Amino acid sequence: MSLKQVFEDIDASYERYKAILAEAVAIDSVSGDPTRRPQTIQMIKWMKERLEKLGAKCTLEDLGHQTVDGKELPLPPVLFGQLGDDKSKKTVLVYGHLDVQPAQKSDGWNTEPFVLTEKNEKLFGRGASDDKGPVLCWAHAIEMLQKHKMDISVNVKFCFEGMEESGSVGLPELLERSKDTFLADVDFVCISDSYWLGTTKPCLTHGLRGITSFKLEVTGIQQDLHSGVYGGVVHEPLQDLVWIMSQLTSVDNRILIPGIYDEVAPMTKEEDELYEKIDFDVSEFRESVGAKKLPTEDKKTLLIRRWREPCLSLHGIEGAFSGAGEKTVIPSKVIGKFSIRLVPDMKPEKVNKMVVDYLNDLWRKRGSPNTFNPRVGHDALPWVADTNDSNFRAGARAMKLVHGVDPDYIREGCSIPITLTFQDLTGKSVLLLPLGAADDMAHSQNEKINKVNYLQGVKTLLAYLIELGKE
Amino acid sequence: MSLKQVFEDIDASYERYKAILAEAVAIDSVSGDPTRRPQTIQMIKWMKERLEKLGAKCTLEDLGHQTVDGKELPLPPVLFGQLGDDKSKKTVLVYGHLDVQPAQKSDGWNTEPFVLTEKNEKLFGRGASDDKGPVLCWAHAIEMLQKHKMDISVNVKFCFEGMEESGSVGLPELLERSKDTFLADVDFVCISDSYWLGTTKPCLTHGLRGITSFKLEVTGIQQDLHSGVYGGVVHEPLQDLVWIMSQLTSVDNRILIPGIYDEVAPMTKEEDELYEKIDFDVSEFRESVGAKKLPTEDKKTLLIRRWREPCLSLHGIEGAFSGAGEKTVIPSKVIGKFSIRLVPDMKPEKVNKMVVDYLNDLWRKRGSPNTFNPRVGHDALPWVADTNDSNFRAGARAMKLVHGVDPDYIREGCSIPITLTFQDLTGKSVLLLPLGAADDMAHSQNEKINKVNYLQGVKTLLAYLIELGKE
Repeated sequence: MSLKQVFEDIDASYERYKAILAEAVAIDSVSGDPTRRPQTIQMIKWMKERLEKLGAKCTLEDLGHQTVDGKELPLPPVLFGQLGDDKSKKTVLVYGHLDVQPAQKSDGWNTEPFVLTEKNEKLFGRGASDDKGPVLCWAHAIEMLQKHKMDISVNVKFCFEGMEESGSVGLPELLERSKDTFLADVDFVCISDSYWLGTTKPCLTHGLRGITSFKLEVTGIQQDLHSGVYGGVVHEPLQDLVWIMSQLTSVDNRILIPGIYDEVAPMTKEEDELYEKIDFDVSEFRESVGAKKLPTEDKKTLLIRRWREPCLSLHGIEGAFSGAGEKTVIPSKVIGKFSIRLVPDMKPEKVNKMVVDYLNDLWRKRGSPNTFNPRVGHDALPWVADTNDSNFRAGARAMKLVHGVDPDYIREGCSIPITLTFQDLTGKSVLLLPLGAADDMAHSQNEKINKVNYLQGVKTLLAYLIELGKE
Repeated sequence: MSLKQVFEDIDASYERYKAILAEAVAIDSVSGDPTRRPQTIQMIKWMKERLEKLGAKCTLEDLGHQTVDGKELPLPPVLFGQLGDDKSKKTVLVYGHLDVQPAQKSDGWNTEPFVLTEKNEKLFGRGASDDKGPVLCWAHAIEMLQKHKMDISVNVKFCFEGMEESGSVGLPELLERSKDTFLADVDFVCISDSYWLGTTKPCLTHGLRGITSFKLEVTGIQQDLHSGVYGGVVHEPLQDLVWIMSQLTSVDNRILIPGIYDEVAPMTKEEDELYEKIDFDVSEFRESVGAKKLPTEDKKTLLIRRWREPCLSLHGIEGAFSGAGEKTVIPSKVIGKFSIRLVPDMKPEKVNKMVVDYLNDLWRKRGSPNTFNPRVGHDALPWVADTNDSNFRAGARAMKLVHGVDPDYIREGCSIPITLTFQDLTGKSVLLLPLGAADDMAHSQNEKINKVNYLQGVKTLLAYLIELGKE
């Protein structure tokens, strides 16, 4: 059986793969929504059954509870699995997540977010690309190797979680506890939870930004008030909050917190040269986001800002009127939310202190009698890897086999905090092997995975497992 | 039958009155929520049946449709009613509204907002005080006069609408059309849709602020983006919006729009003296709103700011993340909402132009390539009345009969735009006769009407109908 014939069988299996992904998308496993915790747990169990059908030995690792708004909420268990236990083979650990970001049709989706819908060879649905599709690619690849009786030349371990979109609560501690057991014999780690730089050329990812997030609570009146009756005679918390939020960035989206850019690692000559080679079209990027103008339109500067500089994004305000129409209310308690992306060598503790000091300075400058409470949320460190190790080489060969071209080596602006945890605990190489295209719209409305990316994804992971056995 | 005995019968009817109010509160007639339009229409029909049981001749005045977010939505009909058609009697027109502000338990209500709940002689529920309770007081008063075979010495007309909380869409036009028919023979107008200045002393209201409202839409990217992937390389609409919103007021909640205070009518000597007499405790007011400090703690200055000066309140932002927890999103389209309260002699057209000019100046100063679209919403004129006419005198005597004290003559910070419409179209006096206490929390969480105010309300309206007959 040649690889070509196996790849043809993968193409022929599309309708079945689609049906399985539809099942997964239909389980609305939004980890950030306490009311959907049962679905998130159900999703983990659903995947356990699939791995067990492939012969993997699986366990559900209990993580206990978390407290959300004063309520105890069970954490989804982590799915550990193992396929093969041949001491003569190396072992690859595969990570993915089965929870998703919130989504509602009214957010601006063209289709029901939890109903996988195919249009123009694109599969739309929350989680289709982030990260249910890629997780299923692993299962499909292994199933195909088994079907065609091809040797899986590495032992495969699985670690699939249900809290990635909510800070992977409990997972780092579980992995820490599993350092000398489940993680002890791992030789490689592979994660498919990022995206190509564009829409056509495959990439391997060797760097990620970290994140640190903040909540700014302003209170001052005991409950929401009628703006006619009380307007003009109270200090409005929302007036204070928007002022504070307005002082964090410049119009060009540069961070105004003094000293924050001084924490960024200087660029090496080697890294500097890397940017020149990368295939990236700024106009195409600008058009893909639908912007009239970007803060920079220079390719290198843009990639640098995206990959190796911090940024600050405002996400929204909790507690103010957010519905359609009008509501003449003075909100009593408002919580502004923003986050800062971290890059080497920024340390969350130091950055958090700089930010909170700056916020408190702003508050003093404001001089409002209201109460200001800046809170630091979860954080994750940035990560950069060596692209010349055996794990990256196997990934690159797999990409070339499937796509016919060498992948670009890119970095990502986003955070996959668990990457660094795996690297630290195993002491081995972590490969980020993205399967989805840049326009898959993870975290956004109309998330999708292209039919071709889904199928090439199965092929790439299958080839990667074969190539790993040669290292 | 003495008035005292009738009043005793009103007190004895409390449980029945409460049950009727509970029925009304249970109909969640939120006019601002398109999905609840059927309930809003149902509420009007429910009231029609009650008036018909009292012998009133009623009609439902069709207002056609409105367009909300591109969808056609039927407007709730206006309920017109008439009880008595004796040409030898004068006619009073009674106005109220049966729609309510939005409310959800999760906003911070201690009880279900649409389940009337009695605690400590207070009846909690959305609409209990604004304005279903007062509307029912009219029905109870008339029922009681009929039960005790007391002459109703005026003809009574009713005008109850279902869109007050959403700008009374269609009502002014209907009244305009009814000027020479339904409104032709009206001698007095009475509205119970405002509040006492405090919690113990009754008031008559002779002034209202108007309102003009604004929506600031900022767009610039075609859909919500992942803040990790796109953070730092797009101009975030929310960063622009909070900056614009931060430039509208000072920390002491004074409006920063140049010239806006120049539009305010100068104070007369007579009016100036009125403030001195009013029974109002600033500390009590500050404590009731739960603030540490107010922008002014001088009684007269505070009442002036509340009644006869404009103010600007920020209500919230549509389109940004507003849920609990974290969402690492860059919102693509955000709409900031604020309103300005108007006082004599401010004209909405002139104020709107000043505001929009200022906003556009700010936007130019900002220099963002995003798209800014400031939109003017509904507006309403301010109103001031003569407290020495027969309508006010009858109201004052009714108050004294029930409460044993002369009422304070106050103004209100909020808008009841229809007041001015009735005054203009009938050419007669409009009396605002508040029944609820200052702490009833209209538009806010835990809205309530006190048991005592509900019962005294029935008595006051009954006495007012009797006293009107003497004028």
